[in-house]
Order: sequence, then structure tokens, then C-alpha cells
Amino acid sequence: MEQQMKRYKAMVEEALERLTFAEGLKDELCSAMRYSLLAGGKRLRGMLALAACEMAGGNVQDALPFAAAIEMIHAYSLIHDDLPAMDNDTMRRGKPTNHVVYGEAMAILAGDGLLTDAFLLMSGGAHPRTLDALREVARAAGSFGMVGGQALDMRQGAPYEGLEAVKAIHRKKTGCLITAPVVAGLMLSKATDQQIACGREYGKHLGVAFQIIDDLLDLVGDEAKMGKHLGKDVAEEKMTWPAMVGQESAWESAKYETNAAVKALEPFGEKAAFLRTLAQDMLSRVN
Amino acid sequence: MEQQMKRYKAMVEEALERLTFAEGLKDELCSAMRYSLLAGGKRLRGMLALAACEMAGGNVQDALPFAAAIEMIHAYSLIHDDLPAMDNDTMRRGKPTNHVVYGEAMAILAGDGLLTDAFLLMSGGAHPRTLDALREVARAAGSFGMVGGQALDMRQGAPYEGLEAVKAIHRKKTGCLITAPVVAGLMLSKATDQQIACGREYGKHLGVAFQIIDDLLDLVGDEAKMGKHLGKDVAEEKMTWPAMVGQESAWESAKYETNAAVKALEPFGEKAAFLRTLAQDMLSRVN
Repeated sequence: MEQQMKRYKAMVEEALERLTFAEGLKDELCSAMRYSLLAGGKRLRGMLALAACEMAGGNVQDALPFAAAIEMIHAYSLIHDDLPAMDNDTMRRGKPTNHVVYGEAMAILAGDGLLTDAFLLMSGGAHPRTLDALREVARAAGSFGMVGGQALDMRQGAPYEGLEAVKAIHRKKTGCLITAPVVAGLMLSKATDQQIACGREYGKHLGVAFQIIDDLLDLVGDEAKMGKHLGKDVAEEKMTWPAMVGQESAWESAKYETNAAVKALEPFGEKAAFLRTLAQDMLSRVN
Repeated sequence: MEQQMKRYKAMVEEALERLTFAEGLKDELCSAMRYSLLAGGKRLRGMLALAACEMAGGNVQDALPFAAAIEMIHAYSLIHDDLPAMDNDTMRRGKPTNHVVYGEAMAILAGDGLLTDAFLLMSGGAHPRTLDALREVARAAGSFGMVGGQALDMRQGAPYEGLEAVKAIHRKKTGCLITAPVVAGLMLSKATDQQIACGREYGKHLGVAFQIIDDLLDLVGDEAKMGKHLGKDVAEEKMTWPAMVGQESAWESAKYETNAAVKALEPFGEKAAFLRTLAQDMLSRVN
């Protein structure tokens, strides 16, 4: 598992270096794009595309442009998220955010460039289902998916309320871009429509589990930072799963979603080992 | 001509209404996207895609999603351009700009949504060359094209200087998104590769002519606004073609580029009537 993870991550990193700026765009825009894109990260989304493709007998090279492109989309979303008009964050992954280094205007353009170039990269694919996979990613990233989730988050999930609001935000803002690489990776393999449907189920449940676990880990982090046990005041100020239902119930939901994700992989048998373990490992981080 | 122009424009407007928000996303993000997208405009880019497709015997319905998508990309670029961190414009086409109405954060998201959904729309095309046409648009819109041109413009065209800087900015910032619809429209027809190459030539020259003419019209507008004849102070403060070579020489270049555009259409014979007249009419606006 550990080794396979390293292999996938190395493939994504190498692809981002090689595929994204092949024409040698060596200006400030390029620097700004690379600054955020190559700043590390788990490469979870790229890894999902590669693993899903291999699980269904595909050639991992067919999924690689998509793995890289989805990481570019993830990177752009973080740059725009961090802007002063949005979350106004000045640090990310231990480095100053893009607009702190390059200025707001260039950060906006760097995001726009990463997003557009991601589609350029995907459109170069040779697999017969390239267009289907690209459509899947576009739907997941745009107003019906991630961008729609951001907008929903800005108004605290309204018109939804409470846990329903949290669920809707999670599903669109985070879930879509976790499901899309799994589905795209399968499309770019030899998977049948039924197998793709199973992959979609896996992705949906994994996306929910991922976000609940992230919220739970944040709480642990906050507790540590604040040097106290979880108080109501911490929980109530955030639109998170534990804030809505309590830490214990959130933990139960994370377990439930992880199990559902693993169950969805059953038709793939032993070939699903990587994606199954990935889901289980994620859960074990909270334990 | 007049009638054909109206027909194309009506098709684009109808497609933008119908194709873009089919799933009934009725929230504030959707309002913000529609506010700028449906604010009028000449629909030059959409028109070019439809006319190029018909010129080469294609079915205009195949080009329609692309015509609409390119207008979405144009609309997103204007929203992001107008942001306080960029040009900080508060009015466009006689209406308050997007961020003035919806706030900066929502304007950023509206732009991101329009850009991403444009690719969703294009990826739904059924023509066998859909993926090629999409790639053409992605290349024209991203860091190798329009976004790269914006970044170049931010630093006054450096490392280029003088007219070379103006040319580079024009080519990337404006020219690419005028050439792309012509090429995409041809790809989505029955055009041969040689015909597509001719269309690309047309688009390139038209793009340059368009921008010079725009600069010339701006000057006339400035003169009128300032109630004085063209003074050196007006010309020198802007990175425009007339500012670099003088009004007379700019006018000669506009004529030259228009003629070159028209000449590139020769292989299409009488079928090129619309695109030929469109180029010539553009030029006659300065006369």
C-alpha cells in the first residue's frame, strides 16, 4: 500500500512537471501557477484517478493527464479560495499564499490559467472515452459541483439548514472533485457502465467520509491549539459535521460512509485492494 | 448580411438561455453568471463559430454549443478583468460590473463557473471532432492564449517593447479568442485540414484588425470625450497600436490585415461572403 501510494504520487508529480508547461512558458504567470501547483499535497485526487484506472484493467498512462488535470483544478480552487475577497488566507501548507507572493491580480490569473490549462491537458487524451471523462470532470468542477459548493458555503448552505446544509456544501464543494477522478479513471480503462456506477458510489461515500474525517481532525487540531477539550463554543461557530451532530455521531457517520465506500468496491474483488485500503486508512487517522 | 447577422446573434442568445443553465440552478451564483452573460454584446465570437461552420458545409447545430461556450469564456474574462484587483472597473455596457452588484467573492466564483461550465457545454457535442475543437478553445483561452495575454498586459508587454509588445498582447489577449471560434467552427463542419488552415489565417488577421480598429475607435471616443484633437499625451499613455506608430500608420495596418483576412478566405469562394463582409464592415466603422 505504502509503496503503491508512493508510486502513484511520483507519477502525478512527474506528470505535473512534464505535461503542464511543455511549451516552456517561462514568465511570471507560469511561476505563479507552478508555485501553488507544485507545493506538495497528498495528491489524493490524482491518485484516485490512477488507481481506479488500474483497478479496471486500464493503462495508467491513459488516466495520467486526468490525474494531473484534476490536481491543477484543485490547486486553482485553493488559490482563488485564499484570495482576500474570499477566505483571505495568507498561509497554506507552511508557505505564503499565492496572492501574498504574486499579488492579487496575478493570483486570479494563475487560477484561471490552471483551470483552463487543465482542460487543455485532458483534451489531449487518446482514449476513446476521453470526452466522456472530461465531461465528468467539468460537471464536477463547475457551477453544478465545486464552484456551486463554494457559493453555497458563502451563504452558510442556505436554503438548506443544519446538517442538510453541511451535507450539501460537502457534496458539492469537496465530494464532486473526489468522485470525478474515480469515475474518470474508470472511464479511461476497460470498465463497464455497471463498474463505473460502482466506482461512482465508492467516490460519493469516500467524499463524505473524507470531509467528516477532515472536520474531526480539525477539531482535534483546534483542541490542541486551544489547550482545552472540545467546548460548545468551538463546535457551534463552524458549518461542520461534528458541529451539527456532535463528535461521537460524526465519528459513527464516518465509519458508516467508509464501510459503504468499501462495499461499493465488491464487484472488483481483489483488484480493489488499493482503493479499499485507502478508504480504511483515512478513517484510521481519526482513531 | 444584416439579416444573417441577426440570425446568428439570435441563435447564440437563445443557446445561452437554453443550454447553459438547463438544470435550473436558481441561486445567487446562477444570477451572477447570467447577469454578465446575458448583458448583450455583439456576440462576434459566437457568430464566427456559426458562420465558419456553415461556410464549410457543416450543420450549424454542431457549432452552437461552442458558439455559446466561447461567449461564456468571453463573459468570464470580462468579469475577472473588471475586479478591483485587476482593472477595477465599475461600469460595463452601461450597467454596474458584476462585483459591484454581487460582491467580489461572488464575481470571482461567477467567472470560475462560466469558464468551467463552458467546457461542460462543449464536451456535450456529438460531432466526431468535438475533442479537437475543444482543445483548440482550451489552448486559446489558457496560459498559452488569453490568460497569458492578460498577464503580459499587466507588465506592459515586457520583455517585448514598443509595437512588438502591443502585438504580443493583442495576439494573446484578443486574437486567440477570435481565431479559436473560426477554427472550432470549421472543425465541426466538413472542412479539410487545408481549409481549416485557411480559416486560421483569416482568424489571425481578423484578430489583429479587430484590435487595431478597436484602438482607433477608442481614440476617436477619447477625442470626442476630451473635446480636443488627438494630442501626444493621449496617444502615449496607452499600450495601443496607434499610440506606437501613429493614427495614420495604424489605419494602414488595419486595412492590410483586413485584406489579408479576406484573401485567406479565397478557397471558400462565394460561401465566404458572410465572413468576408464581416471583416470589411469592421474596417468601415473607422472610416
